[in-house]
Amino acid sequence: MTFVVKNKNVEEQAIEAKKAARTLNLLTTEEKNDALIRIADELETNFEEILAENQKDLQEGRNKGFDEAFMDRLALTKERIIDFAKGLRKVTELEDPTDRVLSDWTLDNGLQVKKVTVPLGVIGMIYEARPNVTVDATGLALKSGNAIVLKGGSSALFSNQAIVNIIHQALDKTKIPKEAVQFIASTDREATKKLFTMKDHIDVLIPRGGGSLIKAVVENATVPVLETGVGNCHIYIDADADVDKALNILINAKTDRPAVCNAAETVMIHNDWFEKNVGRLVATFSEHGITVHGDELACKSIPHAVLAEESDWAEEYLSLDIAVKIVANIDEAIDHIDKYGTKHSEAIVTECPEAASKFMKMVDASALYHNASTRFTDGGALGFGAEIGISTQKLHARGPMGLPALTTIKYLMSGNGQVR
Amino acid sequence: MTFVVKNKNVEEQAIEAKKAARTLNLLTTEEKNDALIRIADELETNFEEILAENQKDLQEGRNKGFDEAFMDRLALTKERIIDFAKGLRKVTELEDPTDRVLSDWTLDNGLQVKKVTVPLGVIGMIYEARPNVTVDATGLALKSGNAIVLKGGSSALFSNQAIVNIIHQALDKTKIPKEAVQFIASTDREATKKLFTMKDHIDVLIPRGGGSLIKAVVENATVPVLETGVGNCHIYIDADADVDKALNILINAKTDRPAVCNAAETVMIHNDWFEKNVGRLVATFSEHGITVHGDELACKSIPHAVLAEESDWAEEYLSLDIAVKIVANIDEAIDHIDKYGTKHSEAIVTECPEAASKFMKMVDASALYHNASTRFTDGGALGFGAEIGISTQKLHARGPMGLPALTTIKYLMSGNGQVR
Repeated sequence: MTFVVKNKNVEEQAIEAKKAARTLNLLTTEEKNDALIRIADELETNFEEILAENQKDLQEGRNKGFDEAFMDRLALTKERIIDFAKGLRKVTELEDPTDRVLSDWTLDNGLQVKKVTVPLGVIGMIYEARPNVTVDATGLALKSGNAIVLKGGSSALFSNQAIVNIIHQALDKTKIPKEAVQFIASTDREATKKLFTMKDHIDVLIPRGGGSLIKAVVENATVPVLETGVGNCHIYIDADADVDKALNILINAKTDRPAVCNAAETVMIHNDWFEKNVGRLVATFSEHGITVHGDELACKSIPHAVLAEESDWAEEYLSLDIAVKIVANIDEAIDHIDKYGTKHSEAIVTECPEAASKFMKMVDASALYHNASTRFTDGGALGFGAEIGISTQKLHARGPMGLPALTTIKYLMSGNGQVR
Repeated sequence: MTFVVKNKNVEEQAIEAKKAARTLNLLTTEEKNDALIRIADELETNFEEILAENQKDLQEGRNKGFDEAFMDRLALTKERIIDFAKGLRKVTELEDPTDRVLSDWTLDNGLQVKKVTVPLGVIGMIYEARPNVTVDATGLALKSGNAIVLKGGSSALFSNQAIVNIIHQALDKTKIPKEAVQFIASTDREATKKLFTMKDHIDVLIPRGGGSLIKAVVENATVPVLETGVGNCHIYIDADADVDKALNILINAKTDRPAVCNAAETVMIHNDWFEKNVGRLVATFSEHGITVHGDELACKSIPHAVLAEESDWAEEYLSLDIAVKIVANIDEAIDHIDKYGTKHSEAIVTECPEAASKFMKMVDASALYHNASTRFTDGGALGFGAEIGISTQKLHARGPMGLPALTTIKYLMSGNGQVR
């Protein structure tokens, strides 16, 4: 009986969100911004309430023996809460992605056609134990005119609930109905399953978290998913690559932040370049403490290199490990990416424009680089203002997603009685 | 053992298509157009070969006792084949949807960023016994730089195979490798199932056909789907609706082509308008042979009206039947659409701009009409040149889809050694 009641609640929440979403279509940019600022203010004013609830989550986390990195993501401080508020105020400065006329024209019969951007409707956000997502996602959803159903990790339940209470308190004083922000407190699997399948009430699911969370959503959801995913990114050093550029880019892409999805995991090196520059390459790997998993040719010339197994080519190390493959030509490099790449970010280093052009046309990925590090695949670095995530899918949104990824379009036709 | 071998073939075909798709990225618009014209020429030259094979399908169809409409869709004539060729030549005149720079900018560090449109890659087309889809879909796919895997209905197997043979013959003389067009001849379910799940080789599935085909694809595919679907379209006649406009639009939307998805299925009428104009309304229904399924209020005043059941509100009649609901205000109309609509096309007839604006903002559908018939939701009517279908989903493409729906984007970054 418990299950049934809980499920019903999740569905009721989604229906409330859907209803609220309709109202959001009527609001102006100013009204939406006012609401975000009000939320920011109340979060700052009531930070102690959030910290008190956060202590409960932290205590439970300690009891369960969660590791330090996990506890760090979970822990809130006054400063972090002030940062949440700052983040919301920054979102108010971004361009409203809705109500933009993408094109308009008039048919011969006088019917006026306008293609305009509109909110998606209701966003289902599924995430792990990071309370900041509760605030970030709410801000981005409301700014783009969407309602949101939040399903956070159970280890952050008290913190999230406190945050959402304050959001509701704040919204009560604005034009946005508080039903536009729903928080699913139930931690049982049935609630999540229900969220995955409410196609009638939820327009898109966005998973934020590790690979296994994303996989679970993609495989089980019938609601459309905005998939953000893993990056098995490659650097291809062509025969005509400048040595300094190649080594700089390689080291930056591998070592700047090894744990992120736009870090490089495999370097492919043209045989001619490798033979000429193996000395500097080996010195560079060694200087930066990089562990090489090489193919046979690479292992012959790179001391301490481990022979790569088949699985290495598909591995997202997220560490100072790198797979090294020596190739005879650019086609071999492109074939390898085609087989093992995850369509995220791929780079070629070369002074030959034809090789660069071929690589950028033939490699299938969201971001292609000629003589630059893969690390730039990031909404912040590219100037998008806000980033929902980096899409590794091809439909709807690809690559770093800003606010426009949370919109769809409508065709609006105005006539004076036209019929066909 | 037969199954295993057949499955392997379908996968091999998809891999061949994927490989061919990479080459297509290197071709110019002219080279793609040349290929389409060559196919058109060869279809015309070899029409007798196609007609001979078509006879075999027709014979089998007669043996199986298929109905006349079905046989009509299946039957080819010299004129129909010439129309296929004309269609291809028309596609060559459309703008190439790929390689369009949607935006470009330069970061402070000098890195140049370009957001460009690129082909999706490999399109899986699943359709019923209409041999014209074999030609249409091939033309649209190749023009947009995509490879295509065709899975047509088994009742058109001989015709489709003859058409694809001629396409391959033609492509042999062009820059497009013939592997870019794959035809799955196997008619067993395992082959279709395989097609549904080859995420690594197929980028999108497009079902073309009846509701049950589309449903089967949407429910079983793990490959992303471009869903084209049913239209339960509404006309809302507001209190302030002009009588002539309202009746014209209603009759056009219901009777012009009742069997298509943009035809109206329900009319909602404001009580005040209804009371004033019930006489003309009844006369109009009667004149056009329309069967009314009305709510209680409607039935009281419309002779011969049948009392509507709950299921009538969700019904896509595709006939001269219409559901009639009398409402007290615009909100009731919007609520009704929210509950029963399929997010296709919805119309309001009113002389009140505020009512129109509210309707167009709050109703969630791909096309909203103020004082015009829903029948204009159509790529041809809107001037898109070619129509892949009418999307009822919100992600990627919504409403009538032209060639751009077959593209995605890439970010291309050109630098001189930039690192983060």
